[in-house]
Amino acid sequence: MNKVRLEAFSDGVLAIIITIMVLEIKIPHGDDLAALKPLIPVVMSYVLSFIYIAIYWNNHHHMMHTVKFVTGDILWANLHLLFWLSLIPFVTGWMGENHFDPLPEAFYGFVLLMSSIAYWILQKRIIKRHGSDSLLARAIGRDLKGKISPVLYFFAICSGFLSQWIAGLIYALVALMWLVPDKRIEIIFKNDPEKK
Amino acid sequence: MNKVRLEAFSDGVLAIIITIMVLEIKIPHGDDLAALKPLIPVVMSYVLSFIYIAIYWNNHHHMMHTVKFVTGDILWANLHLLFWLSLIPFVTGWMGENHFDPLPEAFYGFVLLMSSIAYWILQKRIIKRHGSDSLLARAIGRDLKGKISPVLYFFAICSGFLSQWIAGLIYALVALMWLVPDKRIEIIFKNDPEKK
Amino acid sequence: MNKVRLEAFSDGVLAIIITIMVLEIKIPHGDDLAALKPLIPVVMSYVLSFIYIAIYWNNHHHMMHTVKFVTGDILWANLHLLFWLSLIPFVTGWMGENHFDPLPEAFYGFVLLMSSIAYWILQKRIIKRHGSDSLLARAIGRDLKGKISPVLYFFAICSGFLSQWIAGLIYALVALMWLVPDKRIEIIFKNDPEKK
Amino acid sequence: MNKVRLEAFSDGVLAIIITIMVLEIKIPHGDDLAALKPLIPVVMSYVLSFIYIAIYWNNHHHMMHTVKFVTGDILWANLHLLFWLSLIPFVTGWMGENHFDPLPEAFYGFVLLMSSIAYWILQKRIIKRHGSDSLLARAIGRDLKGKISPVLYFFAICSGFLSQWIAGLIYALVALMWLVPDKRIEIIFKNDPEKK
Repeated sequence: MNKVRLEAFSDGVLAIIITIMVLEIKIPHGDDLAALKPLIPVVMSYVLSFIYIAIYWNNHHHMMHTVKFVTGDILWANLHLLFWLSLIPFVTGWMGENHFDPLPEAFYGFVLLMSSIAYWILQKRIIKRHGSDSLLARAIGRDLKGKISPVLYFFAICSGFLSQWIAGLIYALVALMWLVPDKRIEIIFKNDPEKK
Repeated sequence: MNKVRLEAFSDGVLAIIITIMVLEIKIPHGDDLAALKPLIPVVMSYVLSFIYIAIYWNNHHHMMHTVKFVTGDILWANLHLLFWLSLIPFVTGWMGENHFDPLPEAFYGFVLLMSSIAYWILQKRIIKRHGSDSLLARAIGRDLKGKISPVLYFFAICSGFLSQWIAGLIYALVALMWLVPDKRIEIIFKNDPEKK
Repeated sequence: MNKVRLEAFSDGVLAIIITIMVLEIKIPHGDDLAALKPLIPVVMSYVLSFIYIAIYWNNHHHMMHTVKFVTGDILWANLHLLFWLSLIPFVTGWMGENHFDPLPEAFYGFVLLMSSIAYWILQKRIIKRHGSDSLLARAIGRDLKGKISPVLYFFAICSGFLSQWIAGLIYALVALMWLVPDKRIEIIFKNDPEKK
Repeated sequence: MNKVRLEAFSDGVLAIIITIMVLEIKIPHGDDLAALKPLIPVVMSYVLSFIYIAIYWNNHHHMMHTVKFVTGDILWANLHLLFWLSLIPFVTGWMGENHFDPLPEAFYGFVLLMSSIAYWILQKRIIKRHGSDSLLARAIGRDLKGKISPVLYFFAICSGFLSQWIAGLIYALVALMWLVPDKRIEIIFKNDPEKK
């Protein structure tokens, strides 16, 4: 019962985040090609963030499949994750408007880093409550992607002060890494006799 | 199970897109009739986009009826469609503020073109997974509307540089073409013994 | 099946309309009482519109209870209603910023008038499909409130050019008239043996 | 039946409130550390309000568990609560932009005060309809937190004119007080034989 409303609320927040980001793309005043040039970095950062939110929604969706009951700490770990994700429209807009300058780019990476840590905490809480033998525990296994991502974000934040391009490339690569469909949970689900 | 959350998320995003567009109609500073004049093209582009999003919601709704299971590629094809639709508030505002000038109007058409291609890809993916004998495959048949629309958008984008009126008229006509209720899926549903 | 998604989409749009209206209350630049004075009409128009959207949500909710199946024309009559309601944040902000000046106030009334007509059309469509003996037909009876409202809006629009206060008062009175709980549908529901 | 749509609408509004608050964090124009300094109070007030909305969502969620039927007065008491909560993005932005100056801070407290009163009214209405022996009545017991909160808000509003820090601290403390998980309803639920 609890779980349905938690999913619905999370879906609502993620749907709003992914959609209001477009409000940060300010309408240009001109109507010629010159007016479009400053839009290029803005649209680039929009695309990147759209993909990130979509990945989080997708993974959150899969993780919630395995949840059987929601406790207070799971609920707040989830709200903590939504808090960091809710800052993405702001850092996306800031990074885009400043053409991927080092400081805004570092803040963008910081919000991604904190989101990945918040996701990891939520995962830990769920496993703790459902047992190390639970569906989710078996599904994530060693959780390589989840462990590498924060390290890559940290590296990107630092490298951005040397070259904006390296940092931007790392953010894009991490997104790409997650885009590869994560079939682990799906597979375990199919083979699990507990779950119909 | 998967399908319910996919529908809910898509509905959420479409509901937000259709509603935040109104935020692009900036409040005029005056309070006389002269203050209203620049609003005319803005409201016209708002009405056009409202109808387009409503059509997409309606068709998406019918298509999803036929879906029995959601795979990773269907999920991402759906997110790809939502990405292009999420840009509609931006191009709507830009076209409206610039009185349907050729370049913003061409970008408006470009976003419609990409949305229609994304819809077509999503349709293809669903049919591929559910078989060429599936409900959806039979329902869309030769899919004349779906095939003509991108061609018309492309034609409108080009003709806009000759006359803004022709392009605007084509966009309105395509919307009108889709407004005619698409009874194909509904009919097949009624005659389908598999589905109760 | 159809009905659930129609309700969910309408709820989503109404929830967004009622909430984004607050974005039209621009943050004042000062931090003293003088900075608050221009906010008074803005907040007044916000309160009025909040009540109107709440009434529409409430009545829509009751009306949908009686619906058993959704046809294409009901669906589009519903979208037509949502279109006019989606303009409320805009006219609310405009009327508030211009201290209930005649022209913005008349436009506010015009959007209310069109919304009430759209609601009436939706009601007619539902009754037409469900029969004049249907739950909704019996529930609304002579539908006095629904018939008086558009007349009062029309009167308010005209009288606003003589006195802004009369128009504002009429809008408030119509809202008050609807706030009185509409028990008709609830009562019929209780006595209806068809519906469990 | 009624209850599901009431919950869905409330969830929608709360999800939108918590997410659009980020739009009040205006993107800074510079890209160096100096551009960030004015953001500190803005982000602080954002964090505070995010926690408050999350607490309200959480408590609302628990309260609604105990509701068995929705009457007109419960519905309007709920809308009254949503009205005050809908003003939080506005007062959050205003307080943040003015560095927690006394007047905006007092208005922030006023909206919190009215929200807590609205919550208390909603609670009273539900208990009145479900009986003083109902689940909710037993769950809240003497309702110490609910009674202390408005008093603390009132005290904070007044003290803010002496020192902004005291007021800010009180708002943070009240939030902390509510963050401690409220297990009362959960416990009673487990022991209740009426509810499966």
